[in-house]
Amino acid sequence: MIWSNFAPDRSRKEPLYLQLSEFIREEIRQSRALPGTRLPSVRELASGLGLSRTTTETCYSKLAAEGYLVSKPQSGYFVADLEVRPPAEQNFSTTRAETPVRYDFANNYVDGTTFPSVIWRRHLGRALQAREALTGYGEPQGEPVLRQVLAEYSHESRGVVAQPEQIVISAGVQSLFVLLAALLGDRLFHGRRAIAWERPGFAQGEEIFRRQGWDLSHFDVEDLDRAEARLLYVSPSNPYKGRSLTPEQRRRLLRWTREHDGYILEDDYNGEFRYFATPVSSLQGMGDGEHIVYLGSFSRLLFPSLRISYMVLPPGLLPDYQCLARLYNQTSSTVEQLALASFLREGHLRRHVKKLRRLYRRKGELLQRALARYFGHTAAIRGYESGLHMRIAVAGPWDAATLAAKAEAAGVRVRPVPVSPSEPEAEILLSFAGIGEEDIEPAVALLRKAWQ
Amino acid sequence: MIWSNFAPDRSRKEPLYLQLSEFIREEIRQSRALPGTRLPSVRELASGLGLSRTTTETCYSKLAAEGYLVSKPQSGYFVADLEVRPPAEQNFSTTRAETPVRYDFANNYVDGTTFPSVIWRRHLGRALQAREALTGYGEPQGEPVLRQVLAEYSHESRGVVAQPEQIVISAGVQSLFVLLAALLGDRLFHGRRAIAWERPGFAQGEEIFRRQGWDLSHFDVEDLDRAEARLLYVSPSNPYKGRSLTPEQRRRLLRWTREHDGYILEDDYNGEFRYFATPVSSLQGMGDGEHIVYLGSFSRLLFPSLRISYMVLPPGLLPDYQCLARLYNQTSSTVEQLALASFLREGHLRRHVKKLRRLYRRKGELLQRALARYFGHTAAIRGYESGLHMRIAVAGPWDAATLAAKAEAAGVRVRPVPVSPSEPEAEILLSFAGIGEEDIEPAVALLRKAWQ
Repeated sequence: MIWSNFAPDRSRKEPLYLQLSEFIREEIRQSRALPGTRLPSVRELASGLGLSRTTTETCYSKLAAEGYLVSKPQSGYFVADLEVRPPAEQNFSTTRAETPVRYDFANNYVDGTTFPSVIWRRHLGRALQAREALTGYGEPQGEPVLRQVLAEYSHESRGVVAQPEQIVISAGVQSLFVLLAALLGDRLFHGRRAIAWERPGFAQGEEIFRRQGWDLSHFDVEDLDRAEARLLYVSPSNPYKGRSLTPEQRRRLLRWTREHDGYILEDDYNGEFRYFATPVSSLQGMGDGEHIVYLGSFSRLLFPSLRISYMVLPPGLLPDYQCLARLYNQTSSTVEQLALASFLREGHLRRHVKKLRRLYRRKGELLQRALARYFGHTAAIRGYESGLHMRIAVAGPWDAATLAAKAEAAGVRVRPVPVSPSEPEAEILLSFAGIGEEDIEPAVALLRKAWQ
Repeated sequence: MIWSNFAPDRSRKEPLYLQLSEFIREEIRQSRALPGTRLPSVRELASGLGLSRTTTETCYSKLAAEGYLVSKPQSGYFVADLEVRPPAEQNFSTTRAETPVRYDFANNYVDGTTFPSVIWRRHLGRALQAREALTGYGEPQGEPVLRQVLAEYSHESRGVVAQPEQIVISAGVQSLFVLLAALLGDRLFHGRRAIAWERPGFAQGEEIFRRQGWDLSHFDVEDLDRAEARLLYVSPSNPYKGRSLTPEQRRRLLRWTREHDGYILEDDYNGEFRYFATPVSSLQGMGDGEHIVYLGSFSRLLFPSLRISYMVLPPGLLPDYQCLARLYNQTSSTVEQLALASFLREGHLRRHVKKLRRLYRRKGELLQRALARYFGHTAAIRGYESGLHMRIAVAGPWDAATLAAKAEAAGVRVRPVPVSPSEPEAEILLSFAGIGEEDIEPAVALLRKAWQ
């Protein structure tokens, strides 16, 4: 067994001993070299393959260290018995495409055409100069400079009241939920860990809490007294609702925190994009500072692939957070944190959001016009306040799921709205932010045909 | 109450109605405007402050929408009763610095001086052009192009056997643990969720599993039969151990998976940096392809602040993973994923690792020489195989914790090694990757003085 079928490739950068190791490893894994087989000596193999003895020697000792070979003193190397069968060839079927989706109203995409990528790249480049910050793991809580900027930004844009010490940065709201489920469970709810989610709920968040042993339930803000938990999750600009809390509901939530010593997770997803009314500021800024955790994100403002979210913790939770923090590394990229800090500080986000508001308002108008033209009175707009989504009710014999299926078959993807007992109509959610302006009318025309 | 102390600032970009809202909000929050107080009419306030009526009207309706004001038909606006006291001024004490640490052997820093930041910036810039990828949330599993590259890279550099479909990308190994605790718990261990960690364990990983309801225990690879779980965590290049598995131990682990239908999480942290011996390839590549989950990371190779880790799932777990995946967003930045893919593909990582190996070898030699010079036979090197850390045993009356405290008092931070029953000596871990070459000797001299 001199493996004369081994063909060293001297043009490759990989050293020959590695090429040889890989070759022999495969021979063993594929059972072409069987357990117990004695290998040629270092010298034999070297001369047989025209390699140096160093090469074959290094190769053998590597394979022995890995356990593929066994070295027996005075008698040489033998193929080890791994006692496992190598995996069969894997075939991963890639059967995906059914009807191609031409227009997708069901995604969370944003419009990337206005994104100031040249400016962003400049800030990234500048952030990359910060060598000290890049060679460490970063502060678990997030880069101090970004937390400083976020304290100011969230105050100005959303009325949040926070010191930089209260801010925790993370890659996406899910990582924040992982932390919160741990933090709140330990501190506040060791007796009974229960959280109630504003209907229709938020599957990704619920999953995290459920897996950490929390009891889950749902509630309606109109029916707050029925909430079965001391911790509530609300998302005032939740696109599924398509409307925001009334002033009275906001006050009632605050009263609830006081009367039940209850806590609220305020997820401000989408908060910046209410353009009929002036954006309403956060609940957090109205509270007593101790009962509301504010959650903010930049996925809608810049681009979703920038994974930076943040939360504002009440000061009373900070000591416990500090204990937990060393167990949770920062997940957000330091470079992007630093870039975002200077980007925000120079006012680029404000300018960008202004552009986006104009753009999305235009798209919303186009969508309204197209709906009126193709559907007339058979489609009614039910919710549009939240900005990037339009919720419509479609008259006719079909329920929401059927409507969505018919649309999909016609090449348009839409989302059926979960039915709530108070609204039995078939409702569909159209997320139009990621649809090109020129595509809106043809997409609605297709919907009309599909739903005839 | 005309708020004559309100001073509009027309040079600010913020519109006047927002400035006024913020001002009134603070008046209410600070209880200077009390609940039930009637506000001046829109017209009165406008003329009193020299503002337009649109400005004051917009301001009032914003505050009413937020719940700070109540609008009563025919009689105007009143301050609402929020029933909560505003938070007291927060003072976050920043008492941190005791003795300043001059030399830190206890961090996870790497040497950033050799990092090819110009090249990296070029790849980031190129990735930023990929507009389509950036405006979506990205594939939950990670960008396909990076998974393709990682399948090749992990095979070449670590002997991992994987198809791109098996690779899951995430921001740091913790997010992968969150997923794994969910995935393996559902599928494999619904009866009894138990995981055993190779001693001395991994606090951050254990936290995640514990919180998802797993039973934890510890085991030694030498004493595998005592492991009390069907899921084992091993970290063959764990710096705390300072030595890698013997070939026989590697084979025994594989045998264990077969005999117990057991699973192994192989955390290859640091795997690339064994430079005395040739790097030993992964366990995963030796197995049957179904029982080992391989975990890899780039924090040591590029820089820790780049939050990209990955795992290779056995094909049998993929269907369950696909079900879970929609509940877990991708946490890693898309731009950095794309940049890493092209960076790897062009061979820059290989070149960089070569440079790092040389650099760290030089630092290791400097440290050995300094230890010999200042300690002679009173300090013995116990482990150094793993590359970036040196484990030393210090003769004398003190235990490891005392040694670490004495060093810290002298301005040198070191890590005491958790005591294992088989090694009663006082052992200290020196992580030297982040220490400058010129600092090594003075740091060791300080240690000598501290431990006299």
